[in-house]
Amino acid sequence: MTSVDDTLARWRADEARVRARRGEVGAVPPHELAGLSGLELFEAMFDGRLPAPPIGETLDFLAVHVEHGHAVFQGRPGHAHYNPLGTVHGGWFATLLDSAVACAVHSTLPAGKAYTTLELKTNIVRALTDRVPLVRAEGRVVHAGNQVATAEGRLFGPDGKLYAHASTTCLVFDARPPR
Amino acid sequence: MTSVDDTLARWRADEARVRARRGEVGAVPPHELAGLSGLELFEAMFDGRLPAPPIGETLDFLAVHVEHGHAVFQGRPGHAHYNPLGTVHGGWFATLLDSAVACAVHSTLPAGKAYTTLELKTNIVRALTDRVPLVRAEGRVVHAGNQVATAEGRLFGPDGKLYAHASTTCLVFDARPPR
Amino acid sequence: MTSVDDTLARWRADEARVRARRGEVGAVPPHELAGLSGLELFEAMFDGRLPAPPIGETLDFLAVHVEHGHAVFQGRPGHAHYNPLGTVHGGWFATLLDSAVACAVHSTLPAGKAYTTLELKTNIVRALTDRVPLVRAEGRVVHAGNQVATAEGRLFGPDGKLYAHASTTCLVFDARPPR
Amino acid sequence: MTSVDDTLARWRADEARVRARRGEVGAVPPHELAGLSGLELFEAMFDGRLPAPPIGETLDFLAVHVEHGHAVFQGRPGHAHYNPLGTVHGGWFATLLDSAVACAVHSTLPAGKAYTTLELKTNIVRALTDRVPLVRAEGRVVHAGNQVATAEGRLFGPDGKLYAHASTTCLVFDARPPR
Repeated sequence: MTSVDDTLARWRADEARVRARRGEVGAVPPHELAGLSGLELFEAMFDGRLPAPPIGETLDFLAVHVEHGHAVFQGRPGHAHYNPLGTVHGGWFATLLDSAVACAVHSTLPAGKAYTTLELKTNIVRALTDRVPLVRAEGRVVHAGNQVATAEGRLFGPDGKLYAHASTTCLVFDARPPR
Repeated sequence: MTSVDDTLARWRADEARVRARRGEVGAVPPHELAGLSGLELFEAMFDGRLPAPPIGETLDFLAVHVEHGHAVFQGRPGHAHYNPLGTVHGGWFATLLDSAVACAVHSTLPAGKAYTTLELKTNIVRALTDRVPLVRAEGRVVHAGNQVATAEGRLFGPDGKLYAHASTTCLVFDARPPR
Repeated sequence: MTSVDDTLARWRADEARVRARRGEVGAVPPHELAGLSGLELFEAMFDGRLPAPPIGETLDFLAVHVEHGHAVFQGRPGHAHYNPLGTVHGGWFATLLDSAVACAVHSTLPAGKAYTTLELKTNIVRALTDRVPLVRAEGRVVHAGNQVATAEGRLFGPDGKLYAHASTTCLVFDARPPR
Repeated sequence: MTSVDDTLARWRADEARVRARRGEVGAVPPHELAGLSGLELFEAMFDGRLPAPPIGETLDFLAVHVEHGHAVFQGRPGHAHYNPLGTVHGGWFATLLDSAVACAVHSTLPAGKAYTTLELKTNIVRALTDRVPLVRAEGRVVHAGNQVATAEGRLFGPDGKLYAHASTTCLVFDARPPR
């Protein structure tokens, strides 16, 4: 087996393991969100105690690994993501990268803190088609401040080829404002 | 009827008219692409002579108007686009805005010229849920050069409220390299 | 006189008028800053009651007009701004555009509110040399929120030619935290 | 000596060594540019055979190290770079980062190839004053293609504190078009 095949086999196994444990697709009840740190939220999703987000179902991607300041998403480029030019739409790259960089930020937040994405810049460096069976978007926090956090991400194939990269700015705020 | 209702009624009528005329969803054969100017391609899609792009079907949005240097897309924010936080995923904003700014650029290209998106920055200024029935993403070319074009876009609701804006850089090149 | 000459003559007159009234170059005392709205600060600078910022002196540009949500800066491209390639360095474009978009945001803030720039994206669409006698950078607010504001800007010559454009995200906060 | 003092001493020594060898400040004759690879150009500047760029003199920064795909600039934050708020203007951050990422790209180009910066996004994560004696901007190529290259950069102090980061898109083209 070549190294690319090894990687692909590992990625498929990661996805199967995540899918086997996780729960329904749906919305997280807001009161549950506020009581959890970012990492606790992702753990609850991985454990099937909280639902997986609908956008992942719609666009065929999912989180496969989250730790403090670092998040990895995996997606399957498909026909359903094509633009009129016969390649994967830039919005699909942006969606996976946005997920990766935003969750990298979220993973650093304690319970009681929330965030929102202010901006995302995506650089697309190579066209993508369904001949690439799987891709990964990996996000890493660059700056984690009290009010603002930034992160960068890369989207690459099982052979390590880079398809896109991104950077984001997130606003961090108190999830439960004082009454 | 309030002005917002007027706008919404007009947007729904625009969508119905576009859907009534257009063809199947699918890929445009590459040899057809090369022979058409950007505007001719969009006209062929609006007329049903060429298929509509799959990504629009997957994410519930479509082009409703394209003219030279200007493109308007319309989408229905839905549950299927939600992130874990219970709002529309940033990637959905990016997808509509990318379509709008890229097609604004494409609409300026003569037959024999092609483009690819190099980068897109999306600013998200307000959360979006399915309580907003429809949104529009409008793109306008800022600079149309021989090798590079840039464009800006806005995503807003029927009441004129802004949800996001974006800017893009596209590479312009010869569609048919000399042999 | 051609229209370009007209514009240039007007731009030079604007600059002369601003320079005639304004004060020394230096730093605004922090306690003065906190008590002024954005527009009051710019008026105090235009009136010579507060000093002009050092960066303008260093890079040969200045504010020529500020109103609510809109700011205009003017600069003289010169040899001192050149990169090794013999054109104006991208950083000079970024400095003028940053000033224009940030001051457009600042101009919307009441006394007691402050802002900081989180990010700026500059698109450069045309090289600039000292053969262009003057350029203007014009900034306009796109979104003015309680915590976040965004703005866009254009840098153009007296003939209307576009050299660069930009968009920014600013964080808005209370200038005087409660003690 | 603390580690910060060590770093600062090393940075000062690097600057002294570069200043001792380099030549006048001025423009590189265009015909010289075309015959050199990116790395040859930087070596000629470091050796004093070609002039140093004017912008560095104007804004008190210089290249201290360039290798394939990697460039390091060093600057001294000063009063001359201040905005009205009493901190270093965002344009100074952008100038150093633009230099770092653009030269990282340039360093990968063979003779006969040229580049131009299409866009730069700068994230500012911390205010900077002249209490920080020196900062470095480090740029690294992310994607080096035939027509397009991208790079990322960081600006940090001698204690490793991050002040800003950036990403850029550059267009790569033939320096001498066929006649």
